[in-house]
Amino acid sequence: MSAAVRQPEPADEGSPEERQLAWAYLSRVVEGASKPLVALINEVGPVIAARVVRENRLEVLDSKTVARREIDLVEQDLEAIARMGGRLVTPDSPEWPAWRFNAFALLDDDNTIHQRSDYAPPVALWVRGEMALSELDDRGVAIVGTRAASGYGEHVTAEIAGDLAVEGYTVVSGAAYGIDGSAHRAALGQGGKTVAVLACGLDRVYPAGHGKLLQAIARQGAVISEYPPGTVPAKFRFLARNRLVAALTDATLVVEAGWRSGARNTANWAAALGRQVLAVPGPVTAATSAGCHRMIKEGVATLVTNAGDVMEAAGPIGTLALEPTVPARPTDKLSPAQLQVYDGFPSSGAIGVAELSQESGLRMPIVMGALSVLELEGLVSTDGTGWFRK
Amino acid sequence: MSAAVRQPEPADEGSPEERQLAWAYLSRVVEGASKPLVALINEVGPVIAARVVRENRLEVLDSKTVARREIDLVEQDLEAIARMGGRLVTPDSPEWPAWRFNAFALLDDDNTIHQRSDYAPPVALWVRGEMALSELDDRGVAIVGTRAASGYGEHVTAEIAGDLAVEGYTVVSGAAYGIDGSAHRAALGQGGKTVAVLACGLDRVYPAGHGKLLQAIARQGAVISEYPPGTVPAKFRFLARNRLVAALTDATLVVEAGWRSGARNTANWAAALGRQVLAVPGPVTAATSAGCHRMIKEGVATLVTNAGDVMEAAGPIGTLALEPTVPARPTDKLSPAQLQVYDGFPSSGAIGVAELSQESGLRMPIVMGALSVLELEGLVSTDGTGWFRK
Repeated sequence: MSAAVRQPEPADEGSPEERQLAWAYLSRVVEGASKPLVALINEVGPVIAARVVRENRLEVLDSKTVARREIDLVEQDLEAIARMGGRLVTPDSPEWPAWRFNAFALLDDDNTIHQRSDYAPPVALWVRGEMALSELDDRGVAIVGTRAASGYGEHVTAEIAGDLAVEGYTVVSGAAYGIDGSAHRAALGQGGKTVAVLACGLDRVYPAGHGKLLQAIARQGAVISEYPPGTVPAKFRFLARNRLVAALTDATLVVEAGWRSGARNTANWAAALGRQVLAVPGPVTAATSAGCHRMIKEGVATLVTNAGDVMEAAGPIGTLALEPTVPARPTDKLSPAQLQVYDGFPSSGAIGVAELSQESGLRMPIVMGALSVLELEGLVSTDGTGWFRK
Repeated sequence: MSAAVRQPEPADEGSPEERQLAWAYLSRVVEGASKPLVALINEVGPVIAARVVRENRLEVLDSKTVARREIDLVEQDLEAIARMGGRLVTPDSPEWPAWRFNAFALLDDDNTIHQRSDYAPPVALWVRGEMALSELDDRGVAIVGTRAASGYGEHVTAEIAGDLAVEGYTVVSGAAYGIDGSAHRAALGQGGKTVAVLACGLDRVYPAGHGKLLQAIARQGAVISEYPPGTVPAKFRFLARNRLVAALTDATLVVEAGWRSGARNTANWAAALGRQVLAVPGPVTAATSAGCHRMIKEGVATLVTNAGDVMEAAGPIGTLALEPTVPARPTDKLSPAQLQVYDGFPSSGAIGVAELSQESGLRMPIVMGALSVLELEGLVSTDGTGWFRK
């Protein structure tokens, strides 16, 4: 196992209570994602890491944490999450979705994005909901898209999310208006699992109109955030949140997105993390599909049209897409020569073998061979003087 | 120049009249496409080739030509085309689009399709129309699709075909109902060039409802067929016709196609001939776009949304797609840190530098540097006691 995802050594760590306080402190001291801090925690454990940060003894962390290091709202934060009936899930918890976050460590190669300070798992996750986060290590798909979804987009989202939920996939999204909301609702409607990843503290209701939806998600799945209670939504937090939506799933599906959409950011995270990136096409006349078409055209995303396509792409390996059922035609199994003869028939009336030979450009013996097959297939018949279609 | 497209040696060829009669005979004696016959003609010229075939002296041609070799409607065919005000264009004519048909010879490699007997240029082309076929060697796009087009498909076809015609592209199609007809009409409507390739003799009006359209195409462009007058449409002729639609253009664009559509046959020909294959997406809820989505998903076709995309793909090299104009935002040029500070502002009211430092997670000197840039950009302002958004 890589150093970046190694379980901290309990020997270095003090009591469970001390650890919990240290995790809560560390969760607030950085702005969401900090590769150096995660590396430090993995190296020395949360208790020592918290002490080092508090005493400002680590040069590399300066820019991210110095401004916040003296803020200590640990007890207040833990009380707040307890009041909500929630919990702080940390990397040393059995329900930590460790497998999902491996991607941040395993892909640490020459790719520029992997060098970025925000290419890191969350320090910890604040959680409301019955679902154990370890379930996220199973099959899951992120479904994201524009807030200004069209009726078409909401319909397709509901179809795909509902079908995936029925198949046992966890539907992960950002609880925003539009595509996100449709995805959560469809999964809930099918009695499936769904997880909302927020860009603010769990005490915030964002967006304001989704209070009841968030409650329903918490009852049936989970609402999670890497930000401690009280944190307000901000643009950079949405961008950091998107990396978690991508990381916690096998594939990110963009259903509708404008030319310059936040959903493309989630898709880019998915690609950087080695996840599948999928997009639903739509009318080229609709601005709401322009971002999807762009991603498909640029080779960033694979085109999908239904849940079968998504499952084929998202795995597990061996899952096959549902081919649309196309009714078989009686002429489907004919050879080219047989088809040529069959097409040589007039639409009504009889025709002779010599005429069929001229019409099809095939020699008489070949025409006669073809006619015997066509007759066996019940496509043509003869009255002794000529041949006709049945 | 490859043997397969070499101009026949005039020394072997007899008079122009003899050659014309020979070409007309050879055009009828095979069913559209015959690699062995084209090879023979290239080797010995049309006059000797016609004699060899008539005398049944060439084993390899048997299956295709024996049934027809005694039919001699040459004078009747030439009279018929003359009555229509048309002409027979042959490979030794200056207007023969030789460059387009090079693909059949140049790509003669290990690919299975290139070994097929129908992987061949036409023997000759029957033509009605003012346009010289040599113009087909310039920029051209095939636009094809389902006969049962939707309003969406017809609209998008008209937009793209019209824009391409304005840009000087020849729009080539098959004169069928639906997408084909929309493409021809849009090119005509813009005063552009358009060519209809038929799967029957030029004396046939097929489809029956497109008589006036075919006349208009002949006036402004050309209606062409490799089949002599009197030939009736048949399925295998449509398939053979599709190879000419693909061969005569730089790219084949499928606008709408069902899951199992003839347009996919044209697209396969385009791919085999080294042409671009393009497809327009549409609603995943529409069966009329299922074939397009399938081709994009399978990597057969490139997704395009407008004429700019088509021109970028079809060349000439260096043509750029028209990027949609997206209005610039004042925050577009901010650095991540500047954006982080800007997002740290409350939506109304003032905030201090220390609060911004906590809110953004950035150190005070960085916040102050960012504020000076934001102020220069006119995004924020200060009244001496605090900072606020403008």
